[in-house]
Amino acid sequence: MKLYSYFRSSAAFRVRIALNLKGVPYEVVPVHLLKGGGEQFGEAYTRTNPLSLIPALEDGGQVLTQSLAIIEYLDERYPEPPLLPADPLSRAYVRAVALSIACDIHPLNNLRVLRYLVREVGVSDEKKDFWYRHWVELGLGQLDRVVMSGGRSGRYTFGDQVTIADLAIVPQIFNARRFGCDLAKAPTLNEIADRCMQLDAFAKAQPSAQPDAE
Amino acid sequence: MKLYSYFRSSAAFRVRIALNLKGVPYEVVPVHLLKGGGEQFGEAYTRTNPLSLIPALEDGGQVLTQSLAIIEYLDERYPEPPLLPADPLSRAYVRAVALSIACDIHPLNNLRVLRYLVREVGVSDEKKDFWYRHWVELGLGQLDRVVMSGGRSGRYTFGDQVTIADLAIVPQIFNARRFGCDLAKAPTLNEIADRCMQLDAFAKAQPSAQPDAE
Repeated sequence: MKLYSYFRSSAAFRVRIALNLKGVPYEVVPVHLLKGGGEQFGEAYTRTNPLSLIPALEDGGQVLTQSLAIIEYLDERYPEPPLLPADPLSRAYVRAVALSIACDIHPLNNLRVLRYLVREVGVSDEKKDFWYRHWVELGLGQLDRVVMSGGRSGRYTFGDQVTIADLAIVPQIFNARRFGCDLAKAPTLNEIADRCMQLDAFAKAQPSAQPDAE
Repeated sequence: MKLYSYFRSSAAFRVRIALNLKGVPYEVVPVHLLKGGGEQFGEAYTRTNPLSLIPALEDGGQVLTQSLAIIEYLDERYPEPPLLPADPLSRAYVRAVALSIACDIHPLNNLRVLRYLVREVGVSDEKKDFWYRHWVELGLGQLDRVVMSGGRSGRYTFGDQVTIADLAIVPQIFNARRFGCDLAKAPTLNEIADRCMQLDAFAKAQPSAQPDAE
């Protein structure tokens, strides 16, 4: 398998963790999101993924996109260890946690959106940073209450089982720390992220451990 | 089941279609996103969903959030008609189409984000509308190429089977039309949406058919 990845991409980080947990060998193909206006817009990558977004997974000539769809695919193809609980209600719960990050926090703060805010909308760098922190702090704070009050967390978001929820939380917490967000309202998620990072699969997937790390 | 819904919410629209397709009886509990600063922030609803987002589904005392997680739950609890194909690659494909909308288009244009742009970032109404159309036209245009070139579409996104992809496409096309977006670059999705709307489950789920429609 080939994973088109950028070391700092949260979405690619999620998939790297999944591949590591499943023990599936893969080759990282770096796509630099900044160099030369962004390699994701180049002809070569656009042929692979017309959405010009990272990550994409190539498996036997087929290209898969969207991190959460890729992770569910890996979970169906390689059932062990499972990244989703067994019963429908619990599955819905961990999926909702992952989607809260993938739909309600991360999309507002990825590189293309921040760039557009500055270049096209004419927002100052200061206001852009404020925008970033606003959505991260609001989103993670609300999600922390959900996880804390849900009575389902343990060592990880769902008891002691690593699930798709943790795969979404860790990269978002990484980014939040990098951008100096205040995580006082997200203590549970912060602790879960720390515990996850003690696992090899997470540690090896982190930005600084990537071949294209700067 | 109780569905906390707002007639114009795209995410609620997706779940209404799923419930109709599955033939599951449900009661709509309207949550007005604008009235009095937004009923989703009120104490009553925050107790139900601390994320203050629509939709939420109450099933036997359990509250489920995030439209795509709710739809997968319904698909697992009520397998007929299936909203996902049978094989992992095809499942990944339709999930990716749904996520392209739910993660890369819709979150940038929902009410809370547009409001924040105007009220907190100080963006003019004109620039806000430009922002809206930019992400919708870019996102649907790219996605149209994916669907068109993927060789998998038929009457709907995945052959003649209605899938989670269609449940995401239709509400997004509805919104795009409402905001006067140029859909010249998304002819395939436009046609798919029209064909879906001929089905009762879609027609009954549309905003104008809701008890809280204005």
